[in-house]
Amino acid sequence: MEKTDEYFMRQALLEAHKAALIGEVPIGAVVVHNGEIIGRGHNLREHSQQAADHAEMLAIMEANQVLHSWRLVDCDLYVTLEPCVMCSGAIINSRIENLIFGAKDPKAGAVTTLYRVLDDDRLNHQVNVKAGILADESAQMLKTFFKAARKRNKKRRLSRSVSS
Amino acid sequence: MEKTDEYFMRQALLEAHKAALIGEVPIGAVVVHNGEIIGRGHNLREHSQQAADHAEMLAIMEANQVLHSWRLVDCDLYVTLEPCVMCSGAIINSRIENLIFGAKDPKAGAVTTLYRVLDDDRLNHQVNVKAGILADESAQMLKTFFKAARKRNKKRRLSRSVSS
Repeated sequence: MEKTDEYFMRQALLEAHKAALIGEVPIGAVVVHNGEIIGRGHNLREHSQQAADHAEMLAIMEANQVLHSWRLVDCDLYVTLEPCVMCSGAIINSRIENLIFGAKDPKAGAVTTLYRVLDDDRLNHQVNVKAGILADESAQMLKTFFKAARKRNKKRRLSRSVSS
Repeated sequence: MEKTDEYFMRQALLEAHKAALIGEVPIGAVVVHNGEIIGRGHNLREHSQQAADHAEMLAIMEANQVLHSWRLVDCDLYVTLEPCVMCSGAIINSRIENLIFGAKDPKAGAVTTLYRVLDDDRLNHQVNVKAGILADESAQMLKTFFKAARKRNKKRRLSRSVSS
């Protein structure tokens, strides 16, 4: 069975789900080489208190380790949300060949929304981009997460005002 | 004695020198908080084979660890060369207040050259930028490094053509 874009994006969504389970903003990523996943990552910023611990960065770091190379030649990155400036830069720096992402990020997306870093021919590498794969599932997961977070915050504020 | 921009940039240059000593492109960075260096980094990409192991990323990671926080509030980053897209994104993501850099990077600079990521008010944080601090020293260190690298490569090619 040939593994499709949807197959790998479901793996990225599984990573995003792992983030949600521990209270992190649910974003997930996988790096694929020769049809196999060689890097996985989910957003871990709050747990690690590391600004760079985005899903894409962690997946790229693992893939670099697996291939013993900073060059991820013939590798694809699947990520549930459009990468930010930092992650788009890391995708260029690691020479990823194809980026496949889910939902657009209207606030920070650097691939099609605020910038178009990956097809900038002034940089020394360009990346093919496919957008919108399982975008609804990705956006829905984020929506559910932020709705629950708002509810928790409201409850906290209310209990604080009652006890004060 | 008040520590000046030059003082901290010399510390970043010391980091760059550490990179040169082990054959890495000489770029160095330090993160400063309340007049103290809390993060240091030099380019380690070839040794670690990690695409993200730029000087700035490593200095930011150490500072995150020291402050137990992904938010580097009231922190300054000194780096010998203008940051690339990835590092500029990491500077935004870590909420660095001031960036002070040395030489411009005509090929990949994302602060004043190819992009102006750090004063983009569509993003959720902006960074004050001071450029050109000890720029000549920084550029000279890079020039010397690349000149020696070209010489080594030429020698290698010559010895190969003689032995074949």
